This record gives sequence, C-alpha cells and structure tokens, in this order.
Amino acid sequence: MQIEIICTGDEVLTGKIVNSNFSYISQKLEDVGLGVRWGTVVGDDREALLEAFTRAGARADAVVVNGGLGPTVDDLSQEIAASAAGVDLVLNETWLARMEERFRLRSRIMPPNNRKQAMLPQGAEMLDNPIGTACGFALDIGRARFFFTPGVPRELHRMLEEQVIPRLLARSGTPGVIHLKRFHSYGLGESHADALLSGIERLVPDGSVKLGFRAHYPQLETKLTVRGADRADVARKLAPVEAELRRRLGNFILAEDDETLEGNILRALASSGFTLAAVETFTGGQIAARIAPLPGADAVFRRGLVARDLAQINAALGLDGGGAFTLEAAEHVAKAARLTAGGSHALAVLVMLDDGGDRIEFGGTIFIAIAAPAGTVTRRTRIVGGREWVRLGAVELGLDCLRRHLLGLPVDERIDFEKA
Amino acid sequence: MQIEIICTGDEVLTGKIVNSNFSYISQKLEDVGLGVRWGTVVGDDREALLEAFTRAGARADAVVVNGGLGPTVDDLSQEIAASAAGVDLVLNETWLARMEERFRLRSRIMPPNNRKQAMLPQGAEMLDNPIGTACGFALDIGRARFFFTPGVPRELHRMLEEQVIPRLLARSGTPGVIHLKRFHSYGLGESHADALLSGIERLVPDGSVKLGFRAHYPQLETKLTVRGADRADVARKLAPVEAELRRRLGNFILAEDDETLEGNILRALASSGFTLAAVETFTGGQIAARIAPLPGADAVFRRGLVARDLAQINAALGLDGGGAFTLEAAEHVAKAARLTAGGSHALAVLVMLDDGGDRIEFGGTIFIAIAAPAGTVTRRTRIVGGREWVRLGAVELGLDCLRRHLLGLPVDERIDFEKA
Repeated sequence: MQIEIICTGDEVLTGKIVNSNFSYISQKLEDVGLGVRWGTVVGDDREALLEAFTRAGARADAVVVNGGLGPTVDDLSQEIAASAAGVDLVLNETWLARMEERFRLRSRIMPPNNRKQAMLPQGAEMLDNPIGTACGFALDIGRARFFFTPGVPRELHRMLEEQVIPRLLARSGTPGVIHLKRFHSYGLGESHADALLSGIERLVPDGSVKLGFRAHYPQLETKLTVRGADRADVARKLAPVEAELRRRLGNFILAEDDETLEGNILRALASSGFTLAAVETFTGGQIAARIAPLPGADAVFRRGLVARDLAQINAALGLDGGGAFTLEAAEHVAKAARLTAGGSHALAVLVMLDDGGDRIEFGGTIFIAIAAPAGTVTRRTRIVGGREWVRLGAVELGLDCLRRHLLGLPVDERIDFEKA
Repeated sequence: MQIEIICTGDEVLTGKIVNSNFSYISQKLEDVGLGVRWGTVVGDDREALLEAFTRAGARADAVVVNGGLGPTVDDLSQEIAASAAGVDLVLNETWLARMEERFRLRSRIMPPNNRKQAMLPQGAEMLDNPIGTACGFALDIGRARFFFTPGVPRELHRMLEEQVIPRLLARSGTPGVIHLKRFHSYGLGESHADALLSGIERLVPDGSVKLGFRAHYPQLETKLTVRGADRADVARKLAPVEAELRRRLGNFILAEDDETLEGNILRALASSGFTLAAVETFTGGQIAARIAPLPGADAVFRRGLVARDLAQINAALGLDGGGAFTLEAAEHVAKAARLTAGGSHALAVLVMLDDGGDRIEFGGTIFIAIAAPAGTVTRRTRIVGGREWVRLGAVELGLDCLRRHLLGLPVDERIDFEKA
C-alpha cells in the first residue's frame, strides 16, 4: 500500500515550527509495519493545497493530511478536500452538537466561527476527536483514501492511534494485530546492537517479527514489531525473541516501552525507602534535573550540589582542601554528600575537561562514585566528541551507573562511547 | 521566485529523525525575504527521487535538495540529479584532490568509496564544503536551478549561508543586501509584542523593513529583515526602527542576535568580577545547568544547591528549621547561599506547586530572591499551564530577574505569563 503524508500550514512551511508531526506520523505508521513513501509540506494556500491533494490522490492508496482543521479563515483543509473530491461542504449536525455541548459544559457560548469546523465534505466519514473542536474525517480523493487530522499534537496523536491506524491496517489487508515492543539502552551504538542481535528475527520463521533501531544519543531504542492473528498469537511469537533480546543486550537495557531511566531509578530508590543526594561538576545540574522535578521525587531526592571547582564542593560538604578531580575525590565527596544529606545513597560525577576550545576531539575524563549503606563503588572513564557530547554522556553514564548499582549489576561494564 | 525544498533519506522519511534541516533551510530563506512554496520528503529510492526532482524542475524556479551526498550506496543524489538533467556523471578532479588532501593531513588513506563523492553531473557547478567530504553542487533540471546540499547539519548550515543563499538572492533579482536583526525577550507573548510594535515597519516608508516573530516558550524572538542597496543603506534604514523597537520592548530585551540570556548573565558577572551561587527546588538543577557548563563559568559559578524540601536547603546552608516556601524563605536562603559560597551574588528560586496531578490548570507560586553586596531584591509570582510549563517559566524568570538586577533594571515588571 502506497501511503503519503501531507503537512499543511504556513508555520510549518516557513520553518517557524519544526515539523515534528511529520516524523511522529511516519514513525507510528512504520511501527505497525506501514511504510510511508512520500511527504509533502504546503502552506495555507488554496492553489498549493489543491495541487497537493490532487497529486497524492492520483498516485497513493492512502494519504494522511495534518493541519488546517481550525476555525480561522486560513484553515482550508475541509474546503480544499471538498474541491478536490468534487463535492460540496455540508454541515455535520452530530459534530456541531458535540461542539456546542462541550462549550455548554464549560459555561461558554460557542463563537460563530467554530461552526466552520462542523462543515465536512459530502460523503466524508467523521473521525472522532474527543479532546478538541477539530473534527477529523476520511474521504476518497482520486484513487486514494484521505485521512484528515488536526495539527495540535495531542489531538493528532490520539486520532492517529484510535481512528486512523486501525482503518489503514484494515485497508492494507494486514491480518490481525500488530504490537510494538521497545527497549531503551545506554552504552551500545546502533551498529553494535545490530550485530549483537543478528538473526534474532529468525527465531520466528514466518517473518512476523521485525527488528528496528532509533538512536538518539546518548540512548538507543531497540524496537520489535510483531504481527499476529490476535493478541495471544502476538504474545506467543514475541516471547522467545524478547527473551533472547534480553539475554543478548543484558545489563544494557535500562527501561522498556514508556519507562525512562530516571523513572526507573526513582522507583528503585522509593521501593526500598532509599533517598538520594547528587554532586556534579561540568554536568552543571543536569543529573539532578533528571530526577528532582519528577512526581514523587520530593520524598526521595534530598540534595543536589553543583560546582565547577572541587574546593567549593569540599567546602559545601565540610571537607578540607581542593585539588584535582580524581576517583578518590569522587569517593570522598560521595561519602560526605551521603552523610550530610542524611540519606541512604549519593551519586558523585566529576568531569575533568580537556584544555582548549570546543572541537570534535575535545574530551573529558569522568570520575563516578556511588556511596551506599553497604559501601562505595566507583568508575572512571573517558568520553570524547566535543563539550556537549561529553556533558550528555557524563549525565547518562552517571545515572546508568546508579541504576546498575541499585539493581545489583556491575557498574563498570565497557560501553561503546568510552575511549581507552 | 518559486522555491521548493526536497529532503531526502530513509531516516527522515520514516521519522527516525525529526526533519529539522527542512525548518532550518526554510527559516533561513524566509529571513532573507525568500519564501518557500513547497516541501517534499522522499526516501533513498531511485524512482521517488527522480519523480521529486522532475516534478520540482517543472514547476519551480529554484530547488534546494538536502541529503544523499554521502559515500554509501544509498546516497543517490548525484546519480538521480544526472538522470533528471539527462547528463552523465563525471569525476570532479578538483574535489577528488581536496578530499585526498584532507585525508592525507590526518595521516589517513582515503577509502575507495569516497571517490563517489567527487562524481558530479556534467555541467554542474561545485559548491564548496570546507568542513566535510560531501561536495555540494548546482545544476539546471527542467526550468529550475537545483542546489544540492549535505545532510550533516553543520555542513548544511555553512553551505546554505556561504554558497546557496547568495546565489538564490542573485537569481531572485533582489537588489543589494539583506540583513536580519534579532532580539530575544522573555515575558511578552507574540501577540502582545506584535501590538507593542504596531506600525514600526512604516518608519521606513519604502517597505524595505519587515517585522517577524518566532515564539519558543519561554522566549520570544523578534526579527527585523532589512533590504538595502548596500551595507550602509541597510544600516541607515535599520537604525531608526531598531531604536524604536528597543524603546518599545525596553527592559524585556534580554539578548540580541546570537547572544543568549545565560551568556549575557555570565558576561555581566565576569566583567565586574562577580561570582554566583544558585539555590533551586522544583527547577531541579536547570538554573545551574544553564550557566555552570558554559566556557568561562568555572571562574564565576561557585555553587548550586538543589532540593525539593526547604529543611534540606536550610540544613545544607547551616540555617535552622524547614517550613513552607515563602518570599522570606527565599530571601534567607539567598543570603545564606551568598555567604557560604563566599561569593558576591546568590539567586534563589523556590517553587510551591499546586496539589494534584498534572493538568493544563496546574500551576506554581514562584519566590525569587537575589542577594548581592548592596542588599537583596525579591519577586513573587504565579505561573499556570502544567508542570513542564511552570518549570520552564520558573527557570527563565529566575535567570531574567538576575539579568535585570545585574543591569540595574526593575526585577518586578509584569510579564504576560503570570497570573494574579
């Protein structure tokens, strides 16, 4: 099935906003095994919209259109969809009543221009939007089925999931159910993970499991897309592949599906009644910022201390002296931070930066210590790739060492991003 | 002039990466007065690329193509450009020599597949890439001039600025010089700034100054695009508009052009020999993280303290007790942080969050205090709009109050984002 995406709106076309809706739609379709062949971006312009709709209607089987469903005069999707399909716009009484009811519930009168949002091309199928006033709809233009979706991201996300993807899957003749299982890791590059997982798809010989990756440094997302007749069939097919994937990626898996590294650390700490203090230097507060603002962190995150200078850190913790960043220094400050915060755990991440200006060979030596009731563990490593690369890597490595320690895993397993 | 952008590559088409190159190109062209009419995204696919090039060559005057210039087999831009133009690929000896020289300087041998990057369509004009191996080129396809650019962002940015935009401006017949002047502000919404600046373009009656905005909460960017016969003409036209804009936006302007809020704070502190300590709660380290990692901040940023609980903050600063976040508490901790860090300035930002789960009406009351040699100033406000909105707003407001204080401006000027 040939699928196209058309994103509309002057803000997207002129680059005022980055077109993240495009990548969102494309990725969601990819995740259920539907490949997108063509993307188009046009502004709020009648001529360009008509050309885009007509062109896509001539060559695609299905088209997802995003944006242009709002109440203002520059929202043109319904009007141009009707033109392209050669039909009139007619009032959808159901949607009008829904909008009026929604305004009534908020003790407001619906402004007259919202009525425009209930005008749909004749013969269009309404696509429900339970969280907004922009009604989606499906319509044939040329040889393709068009699905019109709102530009507001959370409305788009829900309509895509609940309304558009099921209809696309039904049209594509894809049998049964598709499930996406995701694993998040830190420390493995995409090509390394790919090599480690070589042949894993063939554990299910009928080709119904597909392996994919999405690298967003410092983390890597590994995806398994599974097709099956029903949920039980999907679960049966996924089980051996998932088990083997866990075995091969092992300790590197830091979270699954919608979990996050920081969320899992917070849960591990909270479930044991532990608390955390953090000491950081060049990471500048980014380690604390991953945990401290989370809901529930107020009971777990005790204190964060940030300074570029070891003398300042020592003074704040009641230690003597200054000196250079070393593994011993990390150990001392982690222990002192644990004691002064009166908590169970402390994480110290000290970074000794290279001299000179930023460049691709710019690196930092990273000293990590975790102080806990049972003692202190440490790790020393070096990351190269520019200031920002080092900063991001040091944050992630520090947090991942803490996760490993809390789960009883080794904190010094070699990662792909370290030198030496 | 009708301009189109074609972005190529499976990673962009499948949504593995967000297509920020598209918005970058579009915005840069918009900034110099060149509007983009159409955007296309296609994968690394011969048929789709040929269709995209042919289609754009038939309807546009100029086309910017991004991506597909790499050394691997799925980099197809040169090959398909040659097909679409009906010419052969020929070896560009100049570029081959440049690549070989570059590898030689790093004591490396050029791999054979890099040779492919020096194969350009016959008659193409080479576009220099001083920081990469992907050679850009310009070529006529159909009625349009095509500009092929690399997918690596920093290579694209430089080639667009130095090679593509001057050629596009020359072709567009736009006379002389175009200059973009940017102002960054915090606390004004786009429609408010628009109203404040009403009529400002008419200070230059010939229409050669254009006003624009780009909102990226919490900051707003205000842009003046000026056309002139030469640089002197641009400066002459810009001067009265710029002066009036400064007068109307006043204290809200926190940085200009490539400056940042945190960079300006660091410079203001450093130039007076000042130093900074920071105390934060729900912002979780984000205030420290804006300043502490900057080059030069090691001499200025003394200490950051992060805790969700006032008792922890007090204990870390040697103060008694705990209690609720108040303006008095902010004042006390700012003074204590200043003293314990032994520095000149301290910024404290305490946030008292609403109860309950995240929602659009979720808000926080923000208590800000700045302790300085001459005394302490405070500000109390309330921001509503969900956890993340409150967190981002509190970071920016805290930093902006510090900027204002360092420049001798009032810290309590009303902002558009505050309630009450």
